[in-house]
Amino acid sequence: MPHLVILYSGNLDAQANMGALCRGLADTLLAQVDDAGASVFPPGGTRVLAYPAPRFAIADGQHDYAFAYLNLRLGRGRSEATQQRIGEALLATAKAFFEPIQVRRLVGVTLQIDIGAEVFDAKIGNIHPLFAKD
Amino acid sequence: MPHLVILYSGNLDAQANMGALCRGLADTLLAQVDDAGASVFPPGGTRVLAYPAPRFAIADGQHDYAFAYLNLRLGRGRSEATQQRIGEALLATAKAFFEPIQVRRLVGVTLQIDIGAEVFDAKIGNIHPLFAKD
Amino acid sequence: MPHLVILYSGNLDAQANMGALCRGLADTLLAQVDDAGASVFPPGGTRVLAYPAPRFAIADGQHDYAFAYLNLRLGRGRSEATQQRIGEALLATAKAFFEPIQVRRLVGVTLQIDIGAEVFDAKIGNIHPLFAKD
Repeated sequence: MPHLVILYSGNLDAQANMGALCRGLADTLLAQVDDAGASVFPPGGTRVLAYPAPRFAIADGQHDYAFAYLNLRLGRGRSEATQQRIGEALLATAKAFFEPIQVRRLVGVTLQIDIGAEVFDAKIGNIHPLFAKD
Repeated sequence: MPHLVILYSGNLDAQANMGALCRGLADTLLAQVDDAGASVFPPGGTRVLAYPAPRFAIADGQHDYAFAYLNLRLGRGRSEATQQRIGEALLATAKAFFEPIQVRRLVGVTLQIDIGAEVFDAKIGNIHPLFAKD
Repeated sequence: MPHLVILYSGNLDAQANMGALCRGLADTLLAQVDDAGASVFPPGGTRVLAYPAPRFAIADGQHDYAFAYLNLRLGRGRSEATQQRIGEALLATAKAFFEPIQVRRLVGVTLQIDIGAEVFDAKIGNIHPLFAKD
């Protein structure tokens, strides 16, 4: 954790570099600090995945609408202030990305943060050690 | 909100027009009314996205089974009666779509509605103004 | 239910047979028993879907990192011991699959189990009757 999943209508790919959005959002996550100024997220655990939907229906279907849904799933235990700060930072990144696109076409964007309520949680991986401090 | 995400086994695409299902479910959402008879969902905020899974395993794998999972995420604050009415309406649309397919093949379909418990929620978009009433 | 959804970075496909992972995880689910030794999951209701993300950003982006997120959504009403046993069994299957890959590349894997809190739940399908006991 955290991971951010972007579900979007496939018609965005022609005008939006969604890989760049992934990188921008990951960098935004990596820059977050908690109430004490410490990094919120471990570098090795920060992931953004984006999925174009090949089939979709948006609003009344009368225009070539596009849509992107950004969902960040966070672990429990962070302050509400930290959660809001993360949300505002991601929103700023998303706005900077989508506003030039919205000049040219109709795009809805929703950003939501959920707190995971998992009953089982396990990791297996070999990325974290790269970022371990000696 | 609302948004409805369909996750389905890619082997359905040969026989099912999933884009048409998206449109049918979106139209069903747009037709919903609350306990007072008012529209439940704003047209500009109604989205259905469908994702064929290129890899999957269903049941014992001994037949060419197919599967579709329909998940509607709703915002908080609607009555239980409204939630159930929405569910029944989507189910009727899904049944009309899948029953002719189920004559020819083995397909499991699950429809669930979740109420979002997001701790951060933001929208940026330029679709809603199209539907604003003067 | 249950269904298990795998979201993973598309760069895994070159080295990982994700279809085989789906089958392995489905077989693991089918083998689960509850505290009384009875099968936890009906064969006809066991599904695993895997989605490669064509766009993604992982950690600092300085290496060809890969990531897989395995999320099992369970219905309510099973004991905590059963939930943990299911998680450990899936984790063992995931470890056996990913460890040989992690010898060759950097891969993060997260497995989480959520308990569904759906307010509407309906099934339409013709797979279950195949497994009905006479």
